[in-house]
Amino acid sequence: MEKVYAGIIGLGRAGQMHLKNLLTISDIEIVQVADVFIENVSEKLNALGITNQTKDYHELLSNPKINTVFIFTSTDTHEEIVTAAAKAGKNIFCEKPLSMNTDEQASIKVLQEVKKAGVSLQIGFNRRMDPQFRAVHENIQNGKIGTPQMVKITSRDPDVLPHELIKRIGGLLFDFTMHDFDIARYMMHSNISEVYAKGGTLIDPTLKDINDIDTLALVLQFENGTYGLIDNSRRAVYGYDQRVEVFGSEGMLKAENVSGSTVELYNSKRTELSNPLPVFQERYRPAYIAEMKAFVKSLLLNKPVVAEGLDVIMAQRAASAAQKSLETGLPQKVDASYPLI
Amino acid sequence: MEKVYAGIIGLGRAGQMHLKNLLTISDIEIVQVADVFIENVSEKLNALGITNQTKDYHELLSNPKINTVFIFTSTDTHEEIVTAAAKAGKNIFCEKPLSMNTDEQASIKVLQEVKKAGVSLQIGFNRRMDPQFRAVHENIQNGKIGTPQMVKITSRDPDVLPHELIKRIGGLLFDFTMHDFDIARYMMHSNISEVYAKGGTLIDPTLKDINDIDTLALVLQFENGTYGLIDNSRRAVYGYDQRVEVFGSEGMLKAENVSGSTVELYNSKRTELSNPLPVFQERYRPAYIAEMKAFVKSLLLNKPVVAEGLDVIMAQRAASAAQKSLETGLPQKVDASYPLI
Amino acid sequence: MEKVYAGIIGLGRAGQMHLKNLLTISDIEIVQVADVFIENVSEKLNALGITNQTKDYHELLSNPKINTVFIFTSTDTHEEIVTAAAKAGKNIFCEKPLSMNTDEQASIKVLQEVKKAGVSLQIGFNRRMDPQFRAVHENIQNGKIGTPQMVKITSRDPDVLPHELIKRIGGLLFDFTMHDFDIARYMMHSNISEVYAKGGTLIDPTLKDINDIDTLALVLQFENGTYGLIDNSRRAVYGYDQRVEVFGSEGMLKAENVSGSTVELYNSKRTELSNPLPVFQERYRPAYIAEMKAFVKSLLLNKPVVAEGLDVIMAQRAASAAQKSLETGLPQKVDASYPLI
Amino acid sequence: MEKVYAGIIGLGRAGQMHLKNLLTISDIEIVQVADVFIENVSEKLNALGITNQTKDYHELLSNPKINTVFIFTSTDTHEEIVTAAAKAGKNIFCEKPLSMNTDEQASIKVLQEVKKAGVSLQIGFNRRMDPQFRAVHENIQNGKIGTPQMVKITSRDPDVLPHELIKRIGGLLFDFTMHDFDIARYMMHSNISEVYAKGGTLIDPTLKDINDIDTLALVLQFENGTYGLIDNSRRAVYGYDQRVEVFGSEGMLKAENVSGSTVELYNSKRTELSNPLPVFQERYRPAYIAEMKAFVKSLLLNKPVVAEGLDVIMAQRAASAAQKSLETGLPQKVDASYPLI
Repeated sequence: MEKVYAGIIGLGRAGQMHLKNLLTISDIEIVQVADVFIENVSEKLNALGITNQTKDYHELLSNPKINTVFIFTSTDTHEEIVTAAAKAGKNIFCEKPLSMNTDEQASIKVLQEVKKAGVSLQIGFNRRMDPQFRAVHENIQNGKIGTPQMVKITSRDPDVLPHELIKRIGGLLFDFTMHDFDIARYMMHSNISEVYAKGGTLIDPTLKDINDIDTLALVLQFENGTYGLIDNSRRAVYGYDQRVEVFGSEGMLKAENVSGSTVELYNSKRTELSNPLPVFQERYRPAYIAEMKAFVKSLLLNKPVVAEGLDVIMAQRAASAAQKSLETGLPQKVDASYPLI
Repeated sequence: MEKVYAGIIGLGRAGQMHLKNLLTISDIEIVQVADVFIENVSEKLNALGITNQTKDYHELLSNPKINTVFIFTSTDTHEEIVTAAAKAGKNIFCEKPLSMNTDEQASIKVLQEVKKAGVSLQIGFNRRMDPQFRAVHENIQNGKIGTPQMVKITSRDPDVLPHELIKRIGGLLFDFTMHDFDIARYMMHSNISEVYAKGGTLIDPTLKDINDIDTLALVLQFENGTYGLIDNSRRAVYGYDQRVEVFGSEGMLKAENVSGSTVELYNSKRTELSNPLPVFQERYRPAYIAEMKAFVKSLLLNKPVVAEGLDVIMAQRAASAAQKSLETGLPQKVDASYPLI
Repeated sequence: MEKVYAGIIGLGRAGQMHLKNLLTISDIEIVQVADVFIENVSEKLNALGITNQTKDYHELLSNPKINTVFIFTSTDTHEEIVTAAAKAGKNIFCEKPLSMNTDEQASIKVLQEVKKAGVSLQIGFNRRMDPQFRAVHENIQNGKIGTPQMVKITSRDPDVLPHELIKRIGGLLFDFTMHDFDIARYMMHSNISEVYAKGGTLIDPTLKDINDIDTLALVLQFENGTYGLIDNSRRAVYGYDQRVEVFGSEGMLKAENVSGSTVELYNSKRTELSNPLPVFQERYRPAYIAEMKAFVKSLLLNKPVVAEGLDVIMAQRAASAAQKSLETGLPQKVDASYPLI
Repeated sequence: MEKVYAGIIGLGRAGQMHLKNLLTISDIEIVQVADVFIENVSEKLNALGITNQTKDYHELLSNPKINTVFIFTSTDTHEEIVTAAAKAGKNIFCEKPLSMNTDEQASIKVLQEVKKAGVSLQIGFNRRMDPQFRAVHENIQNGKIGTPQMVKITSRDPDVLPHELIKRIGGLLFDFTMHDFDIARYMMHSNISEVYAKGGTLIDPTLKDINDIDTLALVLQFENGTYGLIDNSRRAVYGYDQRVEVFGSEGMLKAENVSGSTVELYNSKRTELSNPLPVFQERYRPAYIAEMKAFVKSLLLNKPVVAEGLDVIMAQRAASAAQKSLETGLPQKVDASYPLI
């Protein structure tokens, strides 16, 4: 492939953010965009010079110039649209998960279509491309800490999401911790074989009404015998908190939080620093751009993608096991072998 | 009490370290010292001006000038000596634990003698007096992070101990993690109600021969519904690693590692900092001195001690539960109510 | 003004960098571009959708749709082009300085034309808009350190520039330290009244052949009686080093270097961090974008610009005095009163 | 020499602080102490077991058991007592300076007596033994930053001293900046050849009445062609501020301030750290102990002292030149060759 001719499906908040990032990347030409409520964003798109707009994503998929689609629609449409895109022979970038159905058979079916079509699929596990986490990963691969023995991940959101949104995108485990499961596997180069989860509603007790929690403490065991710890909270008053630590036989790597400033203020009371960046859009902006660039590169150079379909299934398995652990109060085994596609 | 007239029992490595610290504290006069191998250290003691030496701790306990004894003998003697000291009417400082017997009835019996004698007993949970951890604790008490929701403790030793030593002082859980259980309770102001532990021998497989492990990942639940995570390793190649993080409704507190220097070296390859302090004697020197000063103060001012006998029982319960969790692969409930003494 | 209709003059390396930044800013429409060697960049420009290109900047200045010009040509053309742009009634963004002539009368003449034309002129003192330095400035204005008493600026380049380039853009004082003089005034809210400079060629002795130096230590006195220290080097092997510290009656503010990563690596030898960002294009990218946004905002809202013509004259005076101080070995008074325009 | 048999002269505040430090060092036996107001401290000394006390330092100097004297008397007595101690054949530790007389002939005379007596003399330039500055120095000696080109020293006191005290111990330059001159030489391995100083009273204008200043900005040139910058303030509201940065051909070393805690507090407003240590007694405690240990070691092993008599003369020359620079407004040459003793 010499150039990415892109179709973008879904132009809600996430889609618009990604669109702006895509515009800064060379080797991509945005051919057409689709959204069921295209009229709401039509003018904005025109201002960006994107005039080929449609309400119907099928129309976009049948555009022969387009060789790659970027899917930013709501989670419940992924299964259908990814399948259709594969059948139309387009390469696919899609946010996780592939299906709202926690039974992985649904996702496997999608991946089988992707495989059959021989197209490329990259999952939006953006944190793999965060410059901080990426540096940790590279240092591990370069042997800088010997053999990894323990991974520790802290993920905290700045505030509880609206219940309506949670219902649509999934609760803490399937929407938020999902990223941590993926990063844990990514750092340890091993699949998760057991999960034990403790959690509850220390912040917003009404989350129980929608069967969700806001606070989570979790132990992982990996197939290779190593361990992991994850802690989550929905409300960190000091900002978005995203840290990873990997401990190994020859050292330790820590990715600390990212703050907006290096300025230090010393006064008679204390030394003051800036807080971590407040929201994921800011914190992960470099990651969002980098994952798109990586996808383009893998398409142009015919190289493996940064996060593939199987990765989302493996993360989902851990989330399902964690859910069961919360319900039963017992540790849960996780199948660490990849499904056959 | 107007002054602490001290007897010191046990002058091995730990005892000598503590003795030097005690010499720097005003309001303590060292009256007599006892050790079964007193001849080995006699000359050293003379050089420090401590000439009243005995092989027999009973002789020391019957010295009427002494009002307080400091017990630094090996763990298996604690039960006997603390009991004898209490019966002799002396105030007592003793390293944890009170008994090698993991059944807490043995420790309870000791505490009953202490209570009956009406003397004061402080346990050597030195980390409570570490300036870093102390600052975290004070900030929590001052409401600086609102209601604590999660405590995270990292404790890593610089290297695996000799197996012979482990057999004498207890394995990872009962010697090392014990401190973490205590700090967890101390920070959260709540007792531990459940423990789930995963661990193994990622560093020294021969530890299995003595029924010990070198790597541990652990989830706690507290009586008040909050959570904790502990991770341990016996070998951190970069030094002694002791960190605590407490997350709450209004903020987060982190006690970072202590390094020996603030010096930064920038060269063409990287920016280099000093590593964390290498060994516990250095890292916790201020804590060892502070716990002694605190004990003296509590005796002179008739105030509560920093760590009391019940604290060691509560930490031991968590260690026992963790041991059982490792053996069964299941989470274990912990009795969160204090025993009656 | 409702929108900035922009003409860009000069599309060498600097111009291309700025052009890319301008493309990301809303409320700017790039109408036309000019460069004497336009054929070298024509294709690149077409790819960005910028097809209205010319060799002759006069043609651009006579384009009635354009209300603002951005001048990125080589320093020796600033005097002529800014004057022409002012006469054409265009608002002007121009890199410092306004003239190669160190006698400020040349610059004053340019500013008189700007004033007569009633157009807006912003000077490219980008560091004023660096997020770090900006935060320092705002904290000072908010009274966070009381009355400033001392400013300390460290500026170090990663390597000596080619002699040919130095001859074209000016030596250390007029090209590099110039920014520090401006930041010093900006932070202290006072004009420089005296300069004493020591410097030499500790890195590249052949710089003497073109009457330049590579190392500088400098003391400033400000009109209001406060002090400043500046140190410069042309070669910091660890990257681009840009720091500011302001000390005041109620505290201190420090803007530390910016590194590309928060990752910490602990191994048996040391703790390793990432170095500061290596080059000015990376370090000051946010500043370059912010200065353009600020200019657009000041035009649309009819507000003062971030750095005006007088600022470049005041910085140049300090540079001239420093040059004389180096030559004479004596401190030099600087006229702290603004010239009449 | 096999052991240091010490006499201590001067038991005011400084003397008492040093005495406590000396008590923690092995290989020192304190034989006798002397102070003109010995009755004020007699009881305290008895409690420490130091019963051989005298009002008359001559009596102490004639004590044949004593081989080393530590002089902590007020500055105006140094000349007399060091001379008498040398004549009595005692090794000498003395705080800087050797004489209140800024004409160095007085100090040279003292050093000639020391030389004639063949005794050892160490000057109390404690900062050379500060663990932070020491690490910088060692890294430089190990070639970690190549050839040093620039040293930058920041020294700020927490508050203005009482005028009466200043009159007795010397003003900013001769009491406070004196240490910086010494550290500058120590780091650069070169003598100071020129000084230019700017300073004034930005904090306490009444200091002018006693011919002193509270704020100082200073440029140094060293004999080997390198440069230095020093800034001083008498009042840093955030604590005692002591930093050194050395920049070289292959890197940079920074000794950052020392704070009492590694604890970080994140709340909704900011990230808070502990301030630097508040007073010199705390900040330099390790340095005070280390300089005494180093002196003992140099006596026992017959090695050079850490800071010798000539060092105080070289620092004093820089202070005198700075004083003249302040008075004349001109840079002042400093004789960089050592005086003949």
